[in-house]
Amino acid sequence: MSKKGRHSIEFESDVFIAGHFGAVAGKREYASEYAQFFDLKTEDDTLGEKTYEQSERMLYKISALGAINNAGLKREDVQLLVGGDLLNQIISSGFTAREIGVPFFGLYGACSAMAESMIIGSLVVGGGFMDNVVCASSSHFATAERQFRQPLEMGTPKTPTSQITVSGSGAVLLSNKDRNKDRIKIKGGTIGCVIDLGIKDANNMGAAMAPACCNTMLNHFDDFKREPSYYDLIITGDLGEHGTKILFDMLNKKGIDIQSRHFDCGKKIFEGQKDIMSGASGCGCCASMLGGYILKSMIAGSYKKILFVATGAMLSKTSSLQGESIPCIAHAVDIEREV
Amino acid sequence: MSKKGRHSIEFESDVFIAGHFGAVAGKREYASEYAQFFDLKTEDDTLGEKTYEQSERMLYKISALGAINNAGLKREDVQLLVGGDLLNQIISSGFTAREIGVPFFGLYGACSAMAESMIIGSLVVGGGFMDNVVCASSSHFATAERQFRQPLEMGTPKTPTSQITVSGSGAVLLSNKDRNKDRIKIKGGTIGCVIDLGIKDANNMGAAMAPACCNTMLNHFDDFKREPSYYDLIITGDLGEHGTKILFDMLNKKGIDIQSRHFDCGKKIFEGQKDIMSGASGCGCCASMLGGYILKSMIAGSYKKILFVATGAMLSKTSSLQGESIPCIAHAVDIEREV
Repeated sequence: MSKKGRHSIEFESDVFIAGHFGAVAGKREYASEYAQFFDLKTEDDTLGEKTYEQSERMLYKISALGAINNAGLKREDVQLLVGGDLLNQIISSGFTAREIGVPFFGLYGACSAMAESMIIGSLVVGGGFMDNVVCASSSHFATAERQFRQPLEMGTPKTPTSQITVSGSGAVLLSNKDRNKDRIKIKGGTIGCVIDLGIKDANNMGAAMAPACCNTMLNHFDDFKREPSYYDLIITGDLGEHGTKILFDMLNKKGIDIQSRHFDCGKKIFEGQKDIMSGASGCGCCASMLGGYILKSMIAGSYKKILFVATGAMLSKTSSLQGESIPCIAHAVDIEREV
Repeated sequence: MSKKGRHSIEFESDVFIAGHFGAVAGKREYASEYAQFFDLKTEDDTLGEKTYEQSERMLYKISALGAINNAGLKREDVQLLVGGDLLNQIISSGFTAREIGVPFFGLYGACSAMAESMIIGSLVVGGGFMDNVVCASSSHFATAERQFRQPLEMGTPKTPTSQITVSGSGAVLLSNKDRNKDRIKIKGGTIGCVIDLGIKDANNMGAAMAPACCNTMLNHFDDFKREPSYYDLIITGDLGEHGTKILFDMLNKKGIDIQSRHFDCGKKIFEGQKDIMSGASGCGCCASMLGGYILKSMIAGSYKKILFVATGAMLSKTSSLQGESIPCIAHAVDIEREV
């Protein structure tokens, strides 16, 4: 374990991703090109629950327990749950922690929650403080619309830059032992700064988040003295079509081109579907893709080194009504398969 | 650094509290018996800002920068801000992070935020990942009432079990160097589980939080094989009159008596004042008391070993309206002065 530059950490001791799980619910999610990789998928976005908040919580719990199970562990073997979600008071995470009954670090980093939880989980495992830590996150289209924009019942039309929150969840089990012999390790992380270039439009999250994403990537490449070509895949959480273009432009101005190896979960998860505007978003977007497609592709040998950058817009209704712009943050995790 | 029992961590390497700051705003806060210990106090709970959310943010920023300054450091020397607050999307913390410009871990643990941030900060410093980390939290009476209960303009009467949110903030600067030679170290921490015995009354937070506090204390004493007499002072965040009684009862049933060395910040901060119902609450309650009275008393030699248990009720308006009870959590930090 050691400091690395101004914004980063390198893990010298073993932090294995020893278990993983991705789950989605809803028609769009079910029809995703990446659907075959999810460990659980259903067209029913209620999951049989009475409220959408309870549906989201169910998704969270399924992924957290799924990752523990995938690592061949029981919940008694896990010393800590680290995670957050989009809902006020992070109720999806909190109620899951109540049910699972393990010590809990609750986070709020909007859609950056998955990467934030993985860095904190890696600090705990990599620092030798604990053996097994589960990191999880979730989001739900209906709960996010109700909280941040308008309730679905209003049928508000979407603008072209708007994004659709994924109803999904994902989790990883971090361990000092490589339980499934997948040889996938978290090697480092770059902690984001809050960046805000003045975007105030709750329907243009991609533009709000792109500068924070660019900042974290530049810090990462600088701290680790790496070129983008070090990675087989550079993944962003949920910039969508518009945000991705802005990210490319901002990086190009700094002489950096990631285009050939870039994969935005928000652009990809609903690719080819109708009426998806700028793409998808939500904590559950990159969390479910990580637990599903991304880690499974690494295990299958498609990618050896990936940079996973989860992007979050810490949009507050209260501060927005008071005229504030949207503060954003992105955290980056260096995930590598040793072969 | 090492695991300690099922729920705890012991820091074998040095984690010094090298700087601290406590700030309060408002008439009750200004009149507090402990007012002399705050580094900043004002009767004006707006702090000259246009909205109460901006006033709270100002309090947060003053404490975070105050702790950095108290340690003789500049913001460039600090590698990380860890913190959270009560407001949705933790805007007090997030906007402060935007302004200070250092890497940021945002947390949500309701009023347990100060202890949660100190444990995560200690993991980072104690694990050798970073040198200087600032941990901060805040709350404000007017912002909390508006968000969780009724706006102040409604003049809703308070019930006897209700508590008054402190308008205040506190911060500590954790470092691997003892910058002020105060010899105060964080020696360990116990991470809370989410506990919920079914309380649904948003005006009875003490009763909701007491079981989580009891659970964390029992885990702490068990993990470290300690009696309460190990500590000179056992501090709880904001249980208030009613919650404290419940905590004593629950501990007594387990054969544990902490009464002679117990100090609840929520009971103490407004002690002797009129119309304070069950006492005070809020992230800023124990954070300001820690940054003010508690650490200054330790430096003055009044206490050598303290257990700081911040208690949080993760109350959600949405889940409450859906019939859910209030999930609670408490984290404990072992703070010791080496003499």
